[in-house]
Amino acid sequence: MKLTLVLLTLLTFSSQSAESESLWRTPDKENTLLLNLANGLVVIELAPEFAPNHVAHIKSLVRAGFYHQSKFYRVVDGFVAQAGPLEDPTESKTIAMEDSIKIDKQWPYTSVSKTDMFAAETGFKDGFAVALDADKSSAWLTHCPGTIALARETDKDSGTHHFYFVIGQAPRYLDRNMAIFGRVIYGMDNVQGIARTKDYKGDDIIAEKGFTDIVSFDVMADLPQKKQLTIEVERTDTDAFAKRLFNRANRTHPFFYHTPPAVLDVCQVQVHSRVAPVSK
Amino acid sequence: MKLTLVLLTLLTFSSQSAESESLWRTPDKENTLLLNLANGLVVIELAPEFAPNHVAHIKSLVRAGFYHQSKFYRVVDGFVAQAGPLEDPTESKTIAMEDSIKIDKQWPYTSVSKTDMFAAETGFKDGFAVALDADKSSAWLTHCPGTIALARETDKDSGTHHFYFVIGQAPRYLDRNMAIFGRVIYGMDNVQGIARTKDYKGDDIIAEKGFTDIVSFDVMADLPQKKQLTIEVERTDTDAFAKRLFNRANRTHPFFYHTPPAVLDVCQVQVHSRVAPVSK
Repeated sequence: MKLTLVLLTLLTFSSQSAESESLWRTPDKENTLLLNLANGLVVIELAPEFAPNHVAHIKSLVRAGFYHQSKFYRVVDGFVAQAGPLEDPTESKTIAMEDSIKIDKQWPYTSVSKTDMFAAETGFKDGFAVALDADKSSAWLTHCPGTIALARETDKDSGTHHFYFVIGQAPRYLDRNMAIFGRVIYGMDNVQGIARTKDYKGDDIIAEKGFTDIVSFDVMADLPQKKQLTIEVERTDTDAFAKRLFNRANRTHPFFYHTPPAVLDVCQVQVHSRVAPVSK
Repeated sequence: MKLTLVLLTLLTFSSQSAESESLWRTPDKENTLLLNLANGLVVIELAPEFAPNHVAHIKSLVRAGFYHQSKFYRVVDGFVAQAGPLEDPTESKTIAMEDSIKIDKQWPYTSVSKTDMFAAETGFKDGFAVALDADKSSAWLTHCPGTIALARETDKDSGTHHFYFVIGQAPRYLDRNMAIFGRVIYGMDNVQGIARTKDYKGDDIIAEKGFTDIVSFDVMADLPQKKQLTIEVERTDTDAFAKRLFNRANRTHPFFYHTPPAVLDVCQVQVHSRVAPVSK
Protein backbone atom coordinates (compact mmCIF):
# COMPACT_ATOMS: atom_id res chain seq x y z
CA MET A 1 0.00 0.00 0.00
CA LYS A 2 1.27 3.39 -0.93
CA LEU A 3 1.75 5.47 2.13
CA THR A 4 1.09 9.15 2.05
CA LEU A 5 2.80 11.16 4.62
CA VAL A 6 1.91 12.58 7.96
CA LEU A 7 3.49 9.41 9.26
CA LEU A 8 6.93 10.91 9.34
CA THR A 9 6.57 11.57 13.02
CA LEU A 10 6.25 7.88 13.67
CA LEU A 11 9.39 6.77 11.96
CA THR A 12 11.71 7.50 14.84
CA PHE A 13 9.65 5.35 17.10
CA SER A 14 9.29 2.47 14.69
CA SER A 15 13.02 2.27 14.24
CA GLN A 16 13.48 2.08 17.98
CA SER A 17 11.44 -1.02 18.46
CA ALA A 18 14.38 -3.21 17.56
CA GLU A 19 16.65 -1.51 20.08
CA SER A 20 17.54 -2.26 23.64
CA GLU A 21 14.90 -3.31 26.11
CA SER A 22 16.06 -0.59 28.45
CA LEU A 23 13.99 1.91 26.47
CA TRP A 24 10.96 0.40 28.17
CA ARG A 25 9.79 -0.02 31.71
CA THR A 26 7.02 -2.09 33.27
CA PRO A 27 4.60 -0.11 35.44
CA ASP A 28 4.00 -1.30 38.99
CA LYS A 29 0.93 -3.57 39.03
CA GLU A 30 -0.08 -2.01 42.32
CA ASN A 31 -0.40 1.32 40.53
CA THR A 32 -2.01 0.09 37.35
CA LEU A 33 -5.79 0.09 36.93
CA LEU A 34 -7.68 -1.96 34.38
CA LEU A 35 -10.93 -0.26 33.42
CA ASN A 36 -13.26 -2.31 31.27
CA LEU A 37 -15.78 -0.26 29.37
CA ALA A 38 -18.57 -1.66 27.26
CA ASN A 39 -16.47 -0.77 24.21
CA GLY A 40 -13.09 -2.01 25.36
CA LEU A 41 -10.24 -1.98 27.82
CA VAL A 42 -8.48 1.07 29.24
CA VAL A 43 -5.29 0.82 31.27
CA ILE A 44 -4.35 3.62 33.65
CA GLU A 45 -1.03 4.19 35.33
CA LEU A 46 -1.39 5.97 38.66
CA ALA A 47 0.90 8.77 39.81
CA PRO A 48 1.66 8.25 43.50
CA GLU A 49 4.59 10.68 43.37
CA PHE A 50 2.23 13.53 42.47
CA ALA A 51 -1.02 12.64 44.20
CA PRO A 52 -0.36 9.93 46.81
CA ASN A 53 -3.60 10.43 48.73
CA HIS A 54 -5.71 10.49 45.60
CA VAL A 55 -4.04 7.33 44.37
CA ALA A 56 -4.73 5.58 47.67
CA HIS A 57 -8.29 6.91 47.67
CA ILE A 58 -9.08 5.74 44.16
CA LYS A 59 -7.50 2.33 44.74
CA SER A 60 -9.56 1.97 47.87
CA LEU A 61 -12.76 2.81 45.97
CA VAL A 62 -11.85 0.52 43.10
CA ARG A 63 -11.06 -2.33 45.50
CA ALA A 64 -14.36 -1.82 47.31
CA GLY A 65 -16.21 -2.20 44.01
CA PHE A 66 -17.51 1.32 44.38
CA TYR A 67 -17.65 2.02 40.64
CA HIS A 68 -19.78 -1.00 39.86
CA GLN A 69 -22.67 0.36 37.76
CA SER A 70 -21.05 3.77 37.41
CA LYS A 71 -21.51 5.47 34.09
CA PHE A 72 -19.90 8.16 32.00
CA TYR A 73 -22.66 10.65 32.48
CA ARG A 74 -20.95 13.82 31.31
CA VAL A 75 -18.97 13.44 28.12
CA VAL A 76 -18.14 16.55 26.13
CA ASP A 77 -16.32 15.90 22.90
CA GLY A 78 -12.96 17.63 22.81
CA PHE A 79 -13.00 18.20 26.55
CA VAL A 80 -13.70 15.55 29.20
CA ALA A 81 -15.40 12.21 29.83
CA GLN A 82 -16.63 12.19 33.41
CA ALA A 83 -17.84 9.17 35.34
CA GLY A 84 -19.30 8.16 38.66
CA PRO A 85 -22.45 6.71 40.15
CA LEU A 86 -25.66 8.34 38.95
CA GLU A 87 -26.85 8.44 42.55
CA ASP A 88 -24.26 9.46 45.09
CA PRO A 89 -24.03 7.71 48.45
CA THR A 90 -25.65 9.65 51.30
CA GLU A 91 -22.27 10.43 52.73
CA SER A 92 -19.27 10.71 50.48
CA LYS A 93 -15.75 11.05 51.78
CA THR A 94 -14.02 14.14 50.45
CA ILE A 95 -10.32 14.35 49.86
CA ALA A 96 -7.94 17.28 50.20
CA MET A 97 -6.49 18.74 47.00
CA GLU A 98 -3.10 17.59 45.76
CA ASP A 99 -2.24 20.08 43.03
CA SER A 100 1.57 20.08 42.94
CA ILE A 101 4.62 18.75 44.69
CA LYS A 102 7.63 20.45 46.15
CA ILE A 103 10.81 19.69 44.30
CA ASP A 104 14.45 20.64 44.64
CA LYS A 105 17.15 21.34 42.10
CA GLN A 106 18.06 17.66 42.01
CA TRP A 107 14.60 16.51 41.03
CA PRO A 108 15.09 14.44 37.89
CA TYR A 109 12.96 15.14 34.83
CA THR A 110 13.41 15.43 31.08
CA SER A 111 12.89 18.99 29.90
CA VAL A 112 10.63 19.66 26.95
CA SER A 113 10.01 23.37 26.64
CA LYS A 114 10.72 26.73 28.21
CA THR A 115 8.35 28.51 25.85
CA ASP A 116 5.16 26.87 27.06
CA MET A 117 2.10 29.14 27.23
CA PHE A 118 1.04 27.95 30.67
CA ALA A 119 4.18 27.28 32.68
CA ALA A 120 7.80 28.35 33.00
CA GLU A 121 8.89 24.92 31.86
CA THR A 122 7.45 21.59 30.82
CA GLY A 123 8.93 18.14 30.78
CA PHE A 124 8.40 14.47 31.47
CA LYS A 125 8.74 12.49 34.67
CA ASP A 126 8.23 8.73 34.45
CA GLY A 127 5.98 9.09 31.43
CA PHE A 128 3.89 11.90 32.85
CA ALA A 129 3.81 15.35 31.25
CA VAL A 130 4.76 17.82 33.95
CA ALA A 131 5.11 21.55 34.40
CA LEU A 132 7.54 23.40 36.67
CA ASP A 133 7.50 26.88 38.11
CA ALA A 134 10.21 29.41 37.30
CA ASP A 135 12.41 28.70 40.33
CA LYS A 136 11.94 24.93 40.03
CA SER A 137 10.54 24.64 43.52
CA SER A 138 7.33 22.91 42.49
CA ALA A 139 6.05 20.63 39.75
CA TRP A 140 2.61 19.46 38.71
CA LEU A 141 0.91 17.17 36.24
CA THR A 142 -0.55 18.83 33.15
CA HIS A 143 -3.99 18.27 31.64
CA CYS A 144 -2.82 16.51 28.51
CA PRO A 145 -5.17 14.17 26.65
CA GLY A 146 -5.46 10.90 28.54
CA THR A 147 -4.93 12.28 32.03
CA ILE A 148 -7.40 11.24 34.71
CA ALA A 149 -8.32 13.56 37.57
CA LEU A 150 -10.85 13.92 40.34
CA ALA A 151 -13.82 16.18 39.69
CA ARG A 152 -14.91 18.54 42.45
CA GLU A 153 -17.20 21.40 43.47
CA THR A 154 -15.97 24.98 43.92
CA ASP A 155 -14.18 24.16 47.18
CA LYS A 156 -10.80 22.80 46.16
CA ASP A 157 -11.04 20.02 48.76
CA SER A 158 -14.51 18.86 47.75
CA GLY A 159 -13.61 15.99 45.42
CA THR A 160 -15.17 12.65 46.31
CA HIS A 161 -15.21 9.91 43.69
CA HIS A 162 -16.33 11.40 40.37
CA PHE A 163 -13.45 11.42 37.94
CA TYR A 164 -12.77 12.53 34.39
CA PHE A 165 -10.51 11.75 31.50
CA VAL A 166 -9.23 14.54 29.27
CA ILE A 167 -10.33 13.65 25.74
CA GLY A 168 -9.46 16.78 23.76
CA GLN A 169 -7.01 19.59 23.26
CA ALA A 170 -5.31 20.00 26.65
CA PRO A 171 -7.39 22.24 28.99
CA ARG A 172 -4.24 23.51 30.63
CA TYR A 173 -6.10 26.24 32.51
CA LEU A 174 -7.17 23.44 34.86
CA ASP A 175 -3.55 22.71 35.79
CA ARG A 176 -2.92 23.05 39.54
CA ASN A 177 -6.66 23.46 40.03
CA MET A 178 -7.50 19.79 39.88
CA ALA A 179 -5.85 16.67 41.24
CA ILE A 180 -4.58 14.59 38.35
CA PHE A 181 -3.77 11.13 39.65
CA GLY A 182 -2.97 9.08 36.58
CA ARG A 183 -2.93 8.73 32.83
CA VAL A 184 -4.11 6.32 30.17
CA ILE A 185 -1.31 4.07 28.94
CA TYR A 186 -3.45 1.80 26.78
CA GLY A 187 -6.88 2.00 25.18
CA MET A 188 -7.14 5.73 24.62
CA ASP A 189 -9.18 4.88 21.53
CA ASN A 190 -11.68 3.23 23.84
CA VAL A 191 -11.79 6.36 25.99
CA GLN A 192 -12.48 8.30 22.80
CA GLY A 193 -15.22 5.80 22.05
CA ILE A 194 -17.19 6.72 25.19
CA ALA A 195 -20.65 7.96 24.18
CA ARG A 196 -20.97 11.75 24.27
CA THR A 197 -23.75 13.29 26.31
CA LYS A 198 -25.79 16.40 25.74
CA ASP A 199 -27.16 18.82 28.23
CA TYR A 200 -30.20 20.94 27.71
CA LYS A 201 -31.70 23.60 29.91
CA GLY A 202 -28.88 23.79 32.37
CA ASP A 203 -28.19 20.70 34.36
CA ASP A 204 -30.19 17.91 32.80
CA ILE A 205 -27.90 15.40 31.23
CA ILE A 206 -29.08 13.39 28.28
CA ALA A 207 -27.12 10.59 26.72
CA GLU A 208 -27.10 10.67 22.96
CA LYS A 209 -26.48 7.00 22.46
CA GLY A 210 -26.84 5.62 25.97
CA PHE A 211 -24.35 6.18 28.74
CA THR A 212 -21.16 4.17 28.52
CA ASP A 213 -20.97 1.84 31.53
CA ILE A 214 -18.07 0.80 33.66
CA VAL A 215 -18.14 -2.97 33.30
CA SER A 216 -15.28 -3.65 35.69
CA PHE A 217 -12.54 -1.66 37.38
CA ASP A 218 -9.60 -3.33 39.10
CA VAL A 219 -6.13 -2.81 40.42
CA MET A 220 -4.06 -5.07 38.15
CA ALA A 221 -2.18 -6.61 41.07
CA ASP A 222 -5.47 -7.98 42.43
CA LEU A 223 -6.34 -9.92 39.30
CA PRO A 224 -5.37 -13.53 38.66
CA GLN A 225 -2.27 -13.79 36.50
CA LYS A 226 -4.18 -14.78 33.38
CA LYS A 227 -6.33 -11.66 33.58
CA GLN A 228 -3.36 -9.36 33.94
CA LEU A 229 -1.88 -7.54 31.00
CA THR A 230 1.76 -7.48 29.98
CA ILE A 231 2.28 -3.82 29.30
CA GLU A 232 5.42 -1.75 28.90
CA VAL A 233 5.75 2.00 28.70
CA GLU A 234 8.39 4.01 26.93
CA ARG A 235 10.93 5.37 29.40
CA THR A 236 11.18 9.15 29.37
CA ASP A 237 14.51 9.35 31.20
CA THR A 238 16.67 7.92 28.44
CA ASP A 239 18.96 9.60 25.95
CA ALA A 240 16.84 8.08 23.20
CA PHE A 241 13.73 9.82 24.48
CA ALA A 242 15.56 13.14 24.90
CA LYS A 243 16.79 12.75 21.34
CA ARG A 244 13.26 12.05 20.14
CA LEU A 245 12.13 15.28 21.81
CA PHE A 246 14.96 17.20 20.21
CA ASN A 247 14.17 15.81 16.78
CA ARG A 248 10.52 16.71 17.15
CA ALA A 249 11.41 20.30 18.03
CA ASN A 250 14.03 20.57 15.29
CA ARG A 251 12.66 19.04 12.16
CA THR A 252 15.10 18.86 9.30
CA HIS A 253 13.34 16.46 6.95
CA PRO A 254 12.70 18.11 3.56
CA PHE A 255 9.02 17.28 4.05
CA PHE A 256 8.93 20.40 6.21
CA TYR A 257 9.57 22.99 3.52
CA HIS A 258 8.44 25.57 6.06
CA THR A 259 10.67 24.78 9.01
CA PRO A 260 8.38 24.71 12.05
CA PRO A 261 9.29 26.89 15.04
CA ALA A 262 11.80 25.05 17.26
CA VAL A 263 9.26 24.48 20.00
CA LEU A 264 7.44 21.49 21.40
CA ASP A 265 4.03 21.23 23.05
CA VAL A 266 4.47 18.72 25.87
CA CYS A 267 0.92 17.45 25.35
CA GLN A 268 1.61 16.74 21.69
CA VAL A 269 4.35 14.25 22.56
CA GLN A 270 2.98 10.76 22.87
CA VAL A 271 4.72 8.44 25.28
CA HIS A 272 4.36 5.04 23.73
CA SER A 273 3.32 1.80 25.30
CA ARG A 274 3.16 -1.74 24.04
CA VAL A 275 1.10 -4.65 25.14
CA ALA A 276 1.84 -8.30 24.68
CA PRO A 277 -0.91 -10.03 22.73
CA VAL A 278 -3.74 -10.93 25.09
CA SER A 279 -4.16 -14.68 25.43
CA LYS A 280 -7.64 -16.00 24.87
CA MET B 1 -28.48 14.53 39.08
CA LYS B 2 -25.79 16.17 41.09
CA LEU B 3 -23.27 17.82 38.82
CA THR B 4 -19.62 17.80 39.64
CA LEU B 5 -17.60 20.44 38.04
CA VAL B 6 -15.41 20.76 35.04
CA LEU B 7 -18.57 21.95 33.33
CA LEU B 8 -17.98 25.55 34.27
CA THR B 9 -16.60 26.24 30.84
CA LEU B 10 -19.91 25.36 29.30
CA LEU B 11 -22.09 27.69 31.27
CA THR B 12 -21.43 30.71 29.12
CA PHE B 13 -22.49 28.85 26.05
CA SER B 14 -25.61 27.35 27.58
CA SER B 15 -26.81 30.75 28.67
CA GLN B 16 -26.36 32.06 25.13
CA SER B 17 -28.72 29.63 23.51
CA ALA B 18 -31.69 31.77 24.45
CA GLU B 19 -30.11 34.86 22.92
CA SER B 20 -30.31 36.47 19.54
CA GLU B 21 -30.15 34.40 16.39
CA SER B 22 -27.37 36.60 15.13
CA LEU B 23 -24.90 34.64 17.22
CA TRP B 24 -25.24 31.88 14.65
CA ARG B 25 -24.67 31.54 10.96
CA THR B 26 -25.64 28.89 8.43
CA PRO B 27 -22.75 27.51 6.39
CA ASP B 28 -23.06 27.58 2.62
CA LYS B 29 -24.46 24.24 1.43
CA GLU B 30 -22.09 24.39 -1.51
CA ASN B 31 -19.19 24.30 0.93
CA THR B 32 -20.57 21.76 3.35
CA LEU B 33 -19.73 18.07 3.02
CA LEU B 34 -21.70 15.23 4.57
CA LEU B 35 -19.48 12.25 5.27
CA ASN B 36 -21.26 9.11 6.37
CA LEU B 37 -19.05 6.66 8.19
CA ALA B 38 -20.10 3.21 9.32
CA ASN B 39 -20.35 4.64 12.84
CA GLY B 40 -22.16 7.88 12.10
CA LEU B 41 -22.36 11.20 10.32
CA VAL B 42 -19.62 13.81 10.04
CA VAL B 43 -20.25 17.29 8.68
CA ILE B 44 -17.37 19.31 7.27
CA GLU B 45 -17.31 22.99 6.46
CA LEU B 46 -14.90 23.81 3.67
CA ALA B 47 -12.57 26.81 3.71
CA PRO B 48 -12.53 28.34 0.21
CA GLU B 49 -10.96 31.55 1.49
CA PHE B 50 -7.85 29.66 2.57
CA ALA B 51 -7.56 26.82 0.09
CA PRO B 52 -9.79 27.55 -2.91
CA ASN B 53 -8.15 25.06 -5.24
CA HIS B 54 -8.19 22.28 -2.67
CA VAL B 55 -11.83 22.96 -1.94
CA ALA B 56 -12.68 22.77 -5.65
CA HIS B 57 -10.54 19.65 -6.00
CA ILE B 58 -12.16 17.81 -3.11
CA LYS B 59 -15.66 18.77 -4.18
CA SER B 60 -14.89 17.53 -7.65
CA LEU B 61 -13.66 14.18 -6.27
CA VAL B 62 -16.64 13.90 -3.93
CA ARG B 63 -19.07 14.68 -6.74
CA ALA B 64 -17.42 12.09 -8.97
CA GLY B 65 -17.96 9.44 -6.30
CA PHE B 66 -14.22 8.98 -6.03
CA TYR B 67 -14.24 8.10 -2.33
CA HIS B 68 -16.75 5.28 -2.73
CA GLN B 69 -15.13 2.30 -0.98
CA SER B 70 -12.37 4.43 0.49
CA LYS B 71 -11.28 3.50 3.99
CA PHE B 72 -9.53 5.06 6.94
CA TYR B 73 -6.38 3.03 6.56
CA ARG B 74 -4.02 5.01 8.78
CA VAL B 75 -5.50 6.03 12.09
CA VAL B 76 -3.13 6.93 14.90
CA ASP B 77 -4.82 7.74 18.16
CA GLY B 78 -4.03 11.26 19.33
CA PHE B 79 -2.77 12.24 15.89
CA VAL B 80 -4.59 11.70 12.60
CA ALA B 81 -7.21 9.58 10.87
CA GLN B 82 -6.23 9.29 7.22
CA ALA B 83 -8.43 8.02 4.41
CA GLY B 84 -8.37 7.24 0.74
CA PRO B 85 -8.70 4.33 -1.64
CA LEU B 86 -6.59 1.28 -0.74
CA GLU B 87 -5.53 1.08 -4.36
CA ASP B 88 -4.69 4.36 -6.02
CA PRO B 89 -5.74 5.06 -9.60
CA THR B 90 -2.97 4.59 -12.15
CA GLU B 91 -2.78 8.32 -12.67
CA SER B 92 -3.69 10.67 -9.88
CA LYS B 93 -3.98 14.39 -10.34
CA THR B 94 -1.73 16.30 -8.00
CA ILE B 95 -2.55 19.70 -6.67
CA ALA B 96 -0.27 22.62 -5.81
CA MET B 97 0.11 23.52 -2.15
CA GLU B 98 -2.04 26.20 -0.58
CA ASP B 99 -0.43 26.84 2.78
CA SER B 100 -1.37 30.42 3.60
CA ILE B 101 -3.06 33.49 2.21
CA LYS B 102 -1.89 37.05 1.82
CA ILE B 103 -3.76 39.46 4.01
CA ASP B 104 -3.67 43.19 4.61
CA LYS B 105 -4.18 45.26 7.73
CA GLN B 106 -7.92 45.40 7.07
CA TRP B 107 -8.34 41.65 7.07
CA PRO B 108 -11.03 40.94 9.64
CA TYR B 109 -10.45 38.31 12.31
CA THR B 110 -11.01 37.86 16.03
CA SER B 111 -7.73 37.80 17.91
CA VAL B 112 -7.11 35.05 20.45
CA SER B 113 -3.48 35.13 21.52
CA LYS B 114 -0.16 36.84 20.98
CA THR B 115 1.65 34.36 23.20
CA ASP B 116 1.11 31.31 21.04
CA MET B 117 4.05 28.89 20.84
CA PHE B 118 3.85 28.49 17.09
CA ALA B 119 2.83 31.83 15.60
CA ALA B 120 3.01 35.54 16.27
CA GLU B 121 -0.73 35.64 16.73
CA THR B 122 -3.74 33.36 16.63
CA GLY B 123 -7.39 34.07 16.12
CA PHE B 124 -10.62 33.02 14.46
CA LYS B 125 -11.95 33.73 11.01
CA ASP B 126 -15.45 32.46 10.19
CA GLY B 127 -15.14 29.66 12.72
CA PHE B 128 -11.68 28.58 11.64
CA ALA B 129 -8.70 28.78 13.99
CA VAL B 130 -6.06 30.84 12.20
CA ALA B 131 -2.50 32.01 12.77
CA LEU B 132 -0.91 35.22 11.53
CA ASP B 133 2.67 36.22 11.00
CA ALA B 134 4.25 39.09 12.91
CA ASP B 135 3.63 41.78 10.29
CA LYS B 136 0.11 40.51 9.57
CA SER B 137 0.86 39.98 5.92
CA SER B 138 -0.20 36.36 5.83
CA ALA B 139 -2.58 34.04 7.62
CA TRP B 140 -3.05 30.27 7.67
CA LEU B 141 -5.28 27.61 9.14
CA THR B 142 -3.93 25.80 12.18
CA HIS B 143 -3.91 22.05 12.81
CA CYS B 144 -6.49 22.05 15.59
CA PRO B 145 -8.48 18.90 16.33
CA GLY B 146 -11.15 18.45 13.69
CA THR B 147 -9.30 20.07 10.82
CA ILE B 148 -9.16 18.19 7.53
CA ALA B 149 -6.17 18.46 5.21
CA LEU B 150 -4.67 16.81 2.17
CA ALA B 151 -1.92 14.26 2.76
CA ARG B 152 1.11 14.36 0.52
CA GLU B 153 4.58 13.01 -0.19
CA THR B 154 7.78 14.96 0.47
CA ASP B 155 7.19 17.31 -2.46
CA LYS B 156 4.88 20.02 -1.19
CA ASP B 157 2.80 19.87 -4.37
CA SER B 158 2.35 16.10 -4.37
CA GLY B 159 -1.06 15.81 -2.68
CA THR B 160 -3.66 13.91 -4.66
CA HIS B 161 -6.77 12.69 -2.84
CA HIS B 162 -5.72 11.10 0.46
CA PHE B 163 -6.87 13.27 3.34
CA TYR B 164 -6.67 13.25 7.11
CA PHE B 165 -8.54 14.55 10.11
CA VAL B 166 -6.62 15.77 13.14
CA ILE B 167 -7.89 13.69 16.07
CA GLY B 168 -5.52 14.64 18.90
CA GLN B 169 -3.53 17.40 20.51
CA ALA B 170 -2.92 19.90 17.73
CA PRO B 171 0.18 18.96 15.65
CA ARG B 172 0.92 22.60 15.01
CA TYR B 173 4.35 21.83 13.53
CA LEU B 174 2.40 20.83 10.41
CA ASP B 175 1.00 24.35 10.04
CA ARG B 176 1.90 25.93 6.69
CA ASN B 177 3.30 22.59 5.60
CA MET B 178 -0.01 21.03 4.68
CA ALA B 179 -3.11 22.32 2.95
CA ILE B 180 -5.97 22.40 5.43
CA PHE B 181 -9.20 22.82 3.52
CA GLY B 182 -11.96 22.43 6.10
CA ARG B 183 -13.02 21.47 9.58
CA VAL B 184 -15.53 19.23 11.28
CA ILE B 185 -18.59 21.15 12.44
CA TYR B 186 -20.65 18.14 13.53
CA GLY B 187 -19.93 14.53 14.45
CA MET B 188 -16.41 14.88 15.83
CA ASP B 189 -17.32 12.02 18.18
CA ASN B 190 -17.82 9.88 15.09
CA VAL B 191 -14.41 10.92 13.78
CA GLN B 192 -13.01 9.87 17.15
CA GLY B 193 -14.86 6.59 16.73
CA ILE B 194 -12.88 5.68 13.60
CA ALA B 195 -11.04 2.38 14.18
CA ARG B 196 -7.36 2.86 14.95
CA THR B 197 -4.81 1.00 12.85
CA LYS B 198 -1.45 -0.44 13.71
CA ASP B 199 1.67 -0.63 11.66
CA TYR B 200 4.33 -3.20 12.07
CA LYS B 201 7.66 -3.54 10.32
CA GLY B 202 7.57 -0.22 8.61
CA ASP B 203 4.87 0.27 6.09
CA ASP B 204 2.43 -2.58 6.51
CA ILE B 205 -0.83 -1.31 7.86
CA ILE B 206 -2.99 -3.56 9.95
CA ALA B 207 -6.45 -2.64 11.14
CA GLU B 208 -7.09 -3.52 14.74
CA LYS B 209 -10.84 -3.75 14.45
CA GLY B 210 -11.39 -3.50 10.70
CA PHE B 211 -10.94 -0.36 8.69
CA THR B 212 -13.68 2.23 9.03
CA ASP B 213 -15.36 2.67 5.65
CA ILE B 214 -16.65 5.74 3.92
CA VAL B 215 -20.29 4.85 3.33
CA SER B 216 -21.17 8.01 1.45
CA PHE B 217 -19.63 11.42 0.87
CA ASP B 218 -21.62 14.29 -0.62
CA VAL B 219 -21.72 18.01 -1.08
CA MET B 220 -24.81 18.99 0.93
CA ALA B 221 -26.17 21.19 -1.85
CA ASP B 222 -26.40 18.13 -4.10
CA LEU B 223 -28.64 16.15 -1.77
CA PRO B 224 -32.42 16.21 -1.86
CA GLN B 225 -33.86 18.58 0.72
CA LYS B 226 -34.92 15.81 3.07
CA LYS B 227 -31.40 14.42 3.25
CA GLN B 228 -29.87 17.79 4.02
CA LEU B 229 -29.09 18.82 7.56
CA THR B 230 -30.11 22.04 9.23
CA ILE B 231 -26.89 23.10 10.88
CA GLU B 232 -25.78 26.38 12.37
CA VAL B 233 -22.35 27.38 13.53
CA GLU B 234 -21.43 29.86 16.24
CA ARG B 235 -20.30 33.13 14.70
CA THR B 236 -16.77 34.10 15.69
CA ASP B 237 -17.03 37.75 14.64
CA THR B 238 -19.46 38.84 17.34
CA ASP B 239 -18.92 40.75 20.56
CA ALA B 240 -20.38 37.76 22.38
CA PHE B 241 -17.70 35.47 20.98
CA ALA B 242 -14.92 37.96 21.76
CA LYS B 243 -16.28 38.17 25.29
CA ARG B 244 -16.30 34.39 25.58
CA LEU B 245 -12.63 34.36 24.53
CA PHE B 246 -11.82 37.04 27.08
CA ASN B 247 -13.60 35.18 29.85
CA ARG B 248 -11.78 31.98 29.03
CA ALA B 249 -8.42 33.74 29.21
CA ASN B 250 -9.32 35.63 32.38
CA ARG B 251 -11.06 33.28 34.74
CA THR B 252 -12.38 34.85 37.91
CA HIS B 253 -14.69 32.14 39.20
CA PRO B 254 -13.62 31.02 42.71
CA PHE B 255 -13.42 27.49 41.32
CA PHE B 256 -10.00 28.55 40.01
CA TYR B 257 -8.22 29.00 43.32
CA HIS B 258 -5.00 29.06 41.32
CA THR B 259 -5.72 31.73 38.74
CA PRO B 260 -4.64 30.28 35.39
CA PRO B 261 -2.22 32.30 33.25
CA ALA B 262 -4.17 34.86 31.18
CA VAL B 263 -3.55 33.01 27.95
CA LEU B 264 -5.66 31.03 25.54
CA ASP B 265 -4.75 28.15 23.26
CA VAL B 266 -6.69 28.76 20.05
CA CYS B 267 -7.13 25.01 19.54
CA GLN B 268 -8.68 24.62 22.97
CA VAL B 269 -11.55 26.96 22.08
CA GLN B 270 -14.47 25.05 20.67
CA VAL B 271 -16.62 26.82 18.15
CA HIS B 272 -20.09 25.45 18.73
CA SER B 273 -22.59 24.21 16.24
CA ARG B 274 -26.15 23.06 16.54
CA VAL B 275 -28.20 20.78 14.40
CA ALA B 276 -31.95 20.66 14.08
CA PRO B 277 -33.29 17.22 14.97
CA VAL B 278 -32.99 14.97 11.95
CA SER B 279 -36.39 13.91 10.62
CA LYS B 280 -36.88 10.18 10.20
